[in-house]
Amino acid sequence: MNIQLPTNKMKALWLTQFGVPPEVRIMDVPKPGKREVLIRIEASPINPSDASFLQGHYSSPKQLPVIPGFEASGQVVATGSNFMAKRLLGKEVACFAPTKGNGSWAEYMVTDFSFVVPLKQKIQSDQGSMLLINPMSALAMVDICRKNKCKALVNTAAASALGRFLIKACADANITLINVVHRQEQVDLLKSIGAKHILNSSKENYLAELRTYCELYNARIAFDAIGSTSTYNLLNALPDGGEVHVYGALSAEKSISANVQDIIFKRKRVRGFWLSTWIAEQSIFKILETAKKARKIISAGNEITIQKKIPLEAFKSGMEDYLNNMTAGKVLLCPSMTIKE
Amino acid sequence: MNIQLPTNKMKALWLTQFGVPPEVRIMDVPKPGKREVLIRIEASPINPSDASFLQGHYSSPKQLPVIPGFEASGQVVATGSNFMAKRLLGKEVACFAPTKGNGSWAEYMVTDFSFVVPLKQKIQSDQGSMLLINPMSALAMVDICRKNKCKALVNTAAASALGRFLIKACADANITLINVVHRQEQVDLLKSIGAKHILNSSKENYLAELRTYCELYNARIAFDAIGSTSTYNLLNALPDGGEVHVYGALSAEKSISANVQDIIFKRKRVRGFWLSTWIAEQSIFKILETAKKARKIISAGNEITIQKKIPLEAFKSGMEDYLNNMTAGKVLLCPSMTIKE
Repeated sequence: MNIQLPTNKMKALWLTQFGVPPEVRIMDVPKPGKREVLIRIEASPINPSDASFLQGHYSSPKQLPVIPGFEASGQVVATGSNFMAKRLLGKEVACFAPTKGNGSWAEYMVTDFSFVVPLKQKIQSDQGSMLLINPMSALAMVDICRKNKCKALVNTAAASALGRFLIKACADANITLINVVHRQEQVDLLKSIGAKHILNSSKENYLAELRTYCELYNARIAFDAIGSTSTYNLLNALPDGGEVHVYGALSAEKSISANVQDIIFKRKRVRGFWLSTWIAEQSIFKILETAKKARKIISAGNEITIQKKIPLEAFKSGMEDYLNNMTAGKVLLCPSMTIKE
Repeated sequence: MNIQLPTNKMKALWLTQFGVPPEVRIMDVPKPGKREVLIRIEASPINPSDASFLQGHYSSPKQLPVIPGFEASGQVVATGSNFMAKRLLGKEVACFAPTKGNGSWAEYMVTDFSFVVPLKQKIQSDQGSMLLINPMSALAMVDICRKNKCKALVNTAAASALGRFLIKACADANITLINVVHRQEQVDLLKSIGAKHILNSSKENYLAELRTYCELYNARIAFDAIGSTSTYNLLNALPDGGEVHVYGALSAEKSISANVQDIIFKRKRVRGFWLSTWIAEQSIFKILETAKKARKIISAGNEITIQKKIPLEAFKSGMEDYLNNMTAGKVLLCPSMTIKE
């Protein structure tokens, strides 16, 4: 076991104001509390949820200023006195940032031992850094679908990393997935990774097709990453009693709309999906079981495409690249990378 | 017992096309099936739900052409062979129209015996005709509130007949009711009948006040009769986990809107409330118990204001009067009235 010991100081991205990009700052390396571990971060992705958080769209308990970043991979280099925390010393892990306080866009992060999953040797740290949010979200969606005895579901922005995991998770669970994308190249991409039902929302007959598919497979649940009229159209296409779970607002509009007759007379409902809410409602056993399933999906070669690995200093341009083309893959922040001047 | 026997023919309002007012037509008097009773209609109100139905906004199983009208009072003048149906012969009753087929805007209607509640002598047939939809909706709302362990709720269009019953039903159930109206005269009216918390949505500080009240009383459920941005504002004002139940679209807009952050990050939900849906989910015992409670509320002197009683022939102008000022009271169709030419 070769543990590189932390120095006293570290680089981190520091968010002082919502809507203004975080900037690099030199800070003290944090010390782990009793149940905590200190992780030397190897990679931490930019997810759509980060974009929302940076804009101030979260009702998160995090107070500013703060280090952003919700998940990462790295090595545990120090721990608190708790037995479970100590067992993780030296391990390569995937980790969630703590619910409150500083996140993973830094050279080091402390988090509770229960937010940490050891990686198997065949998962590289790049993939490990994206183990939790996207694969677990996909598995949580399948879980919601099962609990509602629903055999089919719809997902929008289906070419995203989350969408691609959902294709695997639904196939494993024998759930019919209707994938909605908005460009032909995304149709081709999803076909190439085995998606069966793909609709292109930019096509003229999209709404009629969506309705036909929902009826044919009795899809009573739709997950919507877009918001605005996308929510309206999904709810309208679902059969009576259908439910749209909104999990993103990629349309950049701040509201969703829904047909009032769908809601009053057809018993349809609109609610949200947020991984943090789902996790808060599960037992620790269920969460660990889900994390293990997520690791299995990644080990099976369902890797997330990476478009770029960048040092903390290149955050601003990396974020722009990501927002301009999410389908091209994730952008990973790698705190140990040095800047090429 | 003095039963006036039906003739073979009757007058009825006949709806042939949604969006076009029904017209008087001479038809055969229907015959009751085994479980049914034939009721000579004394009075039948125009409710907001009728306005929706006539516009074609229901996802109702009723096929056109049809006699509209969902509730009435009258006398049972013939019955099928079923014992429970036979017991009602000669009785003055309040009744629901059957789920499928012809309704109550006619001289006679047949309906299942389970849709019929005998009136107590001190309830006049005018009031009895409005016994079911509004009082039962108010009681159903209180029931939903209780099942959600909610001690306070918000209602919009609170000066409506339903709104006024809700004031009584909430007082009886010890639930704090926040009444939202949009004119000062409605504020005065609700004060005069004992409402405690009344907000005027046309006032500048309405949204801030609404938020303060919702927080103060922890009102997690709002019933919304307006739709459109009213739903948005209510959902936004409710605490985390709050739920808006939309039951009307008085704004005349066909959609509701909601803030995407409320939905994703604050676990807030939008769903519908429709008495038919609620009834379909209850046991027959619960429905009868609720109907008895409704009768009690009316017997206790909480009468619905009536602005006009009209013959079937005057439907069109009566509907206009009602839609122009619902707060002035209900318009009752009385099939035995003759036209003043």
